[in-house]
Amino acid sequence: MQAPTIHEIPERSGAAFRLARGEILTVIDPRGEQVADLLAFAADDLDEVISSGRTLDYAETIYLTTGHKLYSNRSQPMLEIVADDVGRHDFLLTPCSYDTFHHFYPTLPPHRGCFGNLAAALEPYGVMPDRIPTAFNCFMNVPIDAETGKLRVLPPISKAGDQIVFRAAMDLVIGLTACSAPDSNGGTFKPIHYAIGPNPRLD
Amino acid sequence: MQAPTIHEIPERSGAAFRLARGEILTVIDPRGEQVADLLAFAADDLDEVISSGRTLDYAETIYLTTGHKLYSNRSQPMLEIVADDVGRHDFLLTPCSYDTFHHFYPTLPPHRGCFGNLAAALEPYGVMPDRIPTAFNCFMNVPIDAETGKLRVLPPISKAGDQIVFRAAMDLVIGLTACSAPDSNGGTFKPIHYAIGPNPRLD
Repeated sequence: MQAPTIHEIPERSGAAFRLARGEILTVIDPRGEQVADLLAFAADDLDEVISSGRTLDYAETIYLTTGHKLYSNRSQPMLEIVADDVGRHDFLLTPCSYDTFHHFYPTLPPHRGCFGNLAAALEPYGVMPDRIPTAFNCFMNVPIDAETGKLRVLPPISKAGDQIVFRAAMDLVIGLTACSAPDSNGGTFKPIHYAIGPNPRLD
Repeated sequence: MQAPTIHEIPERSGAAFRLARGEILTVIDPRGEQVADLLAFAADDLDEVISSGRTLDYAETIYLTTGHKLYSNRSQPMLEIVADDVGRHDFLLTPCSYDTFHHFYPTLPPHRGCFGNLAAALEPYGVMPDRIPTAFNCFMNVPIDAETGKLRVLPPISKAGDQIVFRAAMDLVIGLTACSAPDSNGGTFKPIHYAIGPNPRLD
């Protein structure tokens, strides 16, 4: 079995691509401590979109890992997590944007962030910016204080080469980034790798 | 100052109404332990909609209360919480629906839930069901285990007469329910009251 092509998403950028039902998507953190925001839209009807609220409701946890499904706003499974080296990802926070840069990093040059990168990458597929919901933020480390509810954005616990692997439950348009926000990525910006096709980890 | 009219949302139903910029919306739990799902859309452009992900990002907490703003998908404040008797509300989970009833209560008669009630109430305002995002669930009590991320849906801690009060930061279309899911409401279904207009609590 030939290993699938590895695609690189350069630092602080994004990509979009089709993923057919049954196909395997592997998202790799090649250097460690790098977040990748992931979005999914039903290829046949872009009004069906990944839903953090449906997913957290069904999973009964905020920390999703192997065996969990990511649901659409219509309560349909879109992706299943079939392998996961890390076990700590975020599904609470929206992609960083010009506005979040202004808010959190007023002294840094603003950046269009994952939101702008996703909007640009998804535009050729017909996805409008207002349709971008809370992303599944691979490798993003957002612990919660159970007492106060306070959340923190800490460096990812992913190490170089760590993977999370998804199987598509329907034909999808995927958006994926190498995240642009300093705090989310331990202060440095690195690429993200992905591959579509069989993953030897699953054999 | 005359007290504003109190409107009743009967048990397991929903309502929609306009709320002008600057107006005060008071949501009351008249009997205690009853959840009210709240949605907000910009009246001038329904593509601008309340966003849990933006709001939690800016608030840096999952438990919103007095002083917190509820943001739109465009990073604009839609509502500010200006008073709150309870201090425990949920902004993680989507409105209950036929599908969630099938999932969580397979032996109970299915109900269209807050999702169906919101869709019906908002339809005359031009809001399509696919545009219904994660609601701000007034009085809903969803504690998180910080270690595992596991969430539980417990009875609200609201007591009879408790209120949460919002000020609109833009002209809005609001959707509001008396929630229909057994677990969210301590096993019984009760009405929700609301009022639009000055709240003596704020004087």
